[in-house]
Amino acid sequence: MIERTVSCRPMTHCITNPVTVNDCANIILAAGGTAIMAQDEREVEEITAHASSLVLNMGAVRAQEAMLRAAGTAKKLGHPVVLDPVAAGASHLRGDMCAKLLAEGLVSVIRGNVSEIRALAGGTGQESGVEADLSDRIDEDNLAESAAWLRDFAHRTGTVVLLTGAMDVITDGKRTAVLCGGSELLRRITGAGCMLTSLAGVYCGAAPDRLFEATVTASEVMKHCGEIAEARVRKEMEGTASFRTRLIDAVSLLSADELTSRIRLI
Amino acid sequence: MIERTVSCRPMTHCITNPVTVNDCANIILAAGGTAIMAQDEREVEEITAHASSLVLNMGAVRAQEAMLRAAGTAKKLGHPVVLDPVAAGASHLRGDMCAKLLAEGLVSVIRGNVSEIRALAGGTGQESGVEADLSDRIDEDNLAESAAWLRDFAHRTGTVVLLTGAMDVITDGKRTAVLCGGSELLRRITGAGCMLTSLAGVYCGAAPDRLFEATVTASEVMKHCGEIAEARVRKEMEGTASFRTRLIDAVSLLSADELTSRIRLI
Amino acid sequence: MIERTVSCRPMTHCITNPVTVNDCANIILAAGGTAIMAQDEREVEEITAHASSLVLNMGAVRAQEAMLRAAGTAKKLGHPVVLDPVAAGASHLRGDMCAKLLAEGLVSVIRGNVSEIRALAGGTGQESGVEADLSDRIDEDNLAESAAWLRDFAHRTGTVVLLTGAMDVITDGKRTAVLCGGSELLRRITGAGCMLTSLAGVYCGAAPDRLFEATVTASEVMKHCGEIAEARVRKEMEGTASFRTRLIDAVSLLSADELTSRIRLI
Repeated sequence: MIERTVSCRPMTHCITNPVTVNDCANIILAAGGTAIMAQDEREVEEITAHASSLVLNMGAVRAQEAMLRAAGTAKKLGHPVVLDPVAAGASHLRGDMCAKLLAEGLVSVIRGNVSEIRALAGGTGQESGVEADLSDRIDEDNLAESAAWLRDFAHRTGTVVLLTGAMDVITDGKRTAVLCGGSELLRRITGAGCMLTSLAGVYCGAAPDRLFEATVTASEVMKHCGEIAEARVRKEMEGTASFRTRLIDAVSLLSADELTSRIRLI
Repeated sequence: MIERTVSCRPMTHCITNPVTVNDCANIILAAGGTAIMAQDEREVEEITAHASSLVLNMGAVRAQEAMLRAAGTAKKLGHPVVLDPVAAGASHLRGDMCAKLLAEGLVSVIRGNVSEIRALAGGTGQESGVEADLSDRIDEDNLAESAAWLRDFAHRTGTVVLLTGAMDVITDGKRTAVLCGGSELLRRITGAGCMLTSLAGVYCGAAPDRLFEATVTASEVMKHCGEIAEARVRKEMEGTASFRTRLIDAVSLLSADELTSRIRLI
Repeated sequence: MIERTVSCRPMTHCITNPVTVNDCANIILAAGGTAIMAQDEREVEEITAHASSLVLNMGAVRAQEAMLRAAGTAKKLGHPVVLDPVAAGASHLRGDMCAKLLAEGLVSVIRGNVSEIRALAGGTGQESGVEADLSDRIDEDNLAESAAWLRDFAHRTGTVVLLTGAMDVITDGKRTAVLCGGSELLRRITGAGCMLTSLAGVYCGAAPDRLFEATVTASEVMKHCGEIAEARVRKEMEGTASFRTRLIDAVSLLSADELTSRIRLI
């Protein structure tokens, strides 16, 4: 996936929030892709047609019309659309927009934390009764149950779902992968989630026929590079801002054979 | 204040400008808080209700309606509202917006430089005659006079005011603290003021009953961490961008007992 | 040019995109200028009147009305206006906006890559037949022809044009300078182009009577500091995010006598 990305340099079109937009563009470039972050509804269809994949981040919920138009074009062209439902549980505006995108079948991949994914699962209006049992934190004890719930959600929405936390769980409704590790410091910077979503956008753009594997790769890269960045920061006695820099550095220096598989299929 | 922040992890809602929004979110996280930067008027009331404090930065003056709604909700809920009147003297749009927020009693704390605070003091329509005497730079020679003027302004507006410069002056209309030191390099990066305002937002969120002390803490942390960052940057022969990174690093590594008090009460 | 900038501290008003706005502000400050990034159409005329130069970046195409008003004020006051036609070839909205600014004579300097400049040259509606011969990459083989085409474009539009790539070409329609060198890593970060445009804004603000020389200086500084940053990053075994930091660092540490001329006049 990584070599393919570096060799084909896919362009990812992101409609994303200003808080982390620079980090998202830079991590896409670091991974070997190119990025365009346009969000004016008058140009997004034209822009997204030049790209290989589309990322929609709910932090840019103001650009609703642009998101719908870009997603419509992406669907028509067969480009993967990656949704980041950031704070979907804290704002009805965001939750409703996610529900609309899902209802119209415009989403290929979803990347969120437990509360965000739960907000979406509730928001689809299809009560399953299971989500109430999902803990705020996925761990070995509730993993089997959580994975079953997530598989059901992926199946219902026709998406690949990447649920992030101390443990990442990825499923396309059939296959399910679990990844451990990564760095605690990822929670001390803004944009770790947005950057991971952007990485999923790049790898899905490079391999639109293998969205599950592409999404797993994004998770692996983030966990691996988080560990590298944390080790360097500890050695240099640096803090969280240096960690952000060294995280993107690690992505830019990554070679495919360095990624020792941390995937467990369940 | 610092331990309290780290233990209660207050959420600060910032309506702030895209120039420095990433730095503001990252310094809030570095200080131990959490941040949400939503500014769509359709969701800000819901968002701010989840938070502990609200920061309004005039660089986001376009989001006027969002600011008014969020501030109204924050007031109703008793959340501190911190105003950064950036460039209020250079734009009537910003000056008028600040005047409106103050007139409606929506502001708890103000953080600005001399020309910004002066623009606000003039903008309240209550001529005091004293502001004309305020120099552009607070120093030992004009400190007593400047502090008296600032106390009057704080008293009239019912706010805690933090006036920043080579010397920071903080007053709630009764108590007045002066802090020296810090780094000259803070003037060579964008966002030093915005970041300090964000820190005030975090500490006020952690201690809504002690806004004067919380604001003093924000000033102390910025001056202390500015000095640490400058020392490191000089040692490594680095420039202004590294200073920005090392400043946020220092905030993330700060422990409360490290802050030797630099406060002088006058 | 560099000493003049440091001594007069010109203010550059940028209407630019959120992706790289922080980097643009920081590189302006690093170069010794000051920056204001306002883009609300209700305040930009007032803001730009306080500044020495104006930068318009098509990544902020949504702020069309603000751009037109600010450019009108800048023209009236004789402030240089620097245009960055980013992605003008990928979006008709951006291409049309550039054409409008050029048709109204509101632009002093243009900074873009080959495809962006080509989009503008086509967009002026004055077919020259020559642009079709311009390769995507300027090199020694096509330099004479490309420079002639660029001189014609500069002459027709009454602007100084800075075409960037492995080789930068700058022309005011009469004089033409070529600069080699720089760092390949500039293509691995977002904002290298936007930052160079911002530097052109600062130096043009410091020397509005010498726009050609000011634009050449911007190109020289970016190439020189790119090389310094790359050397440091290689030595420290760092990646692309550190390169961005060290690039701005190098600008902030630059002294005029360090710039050994890399200019070739053709």
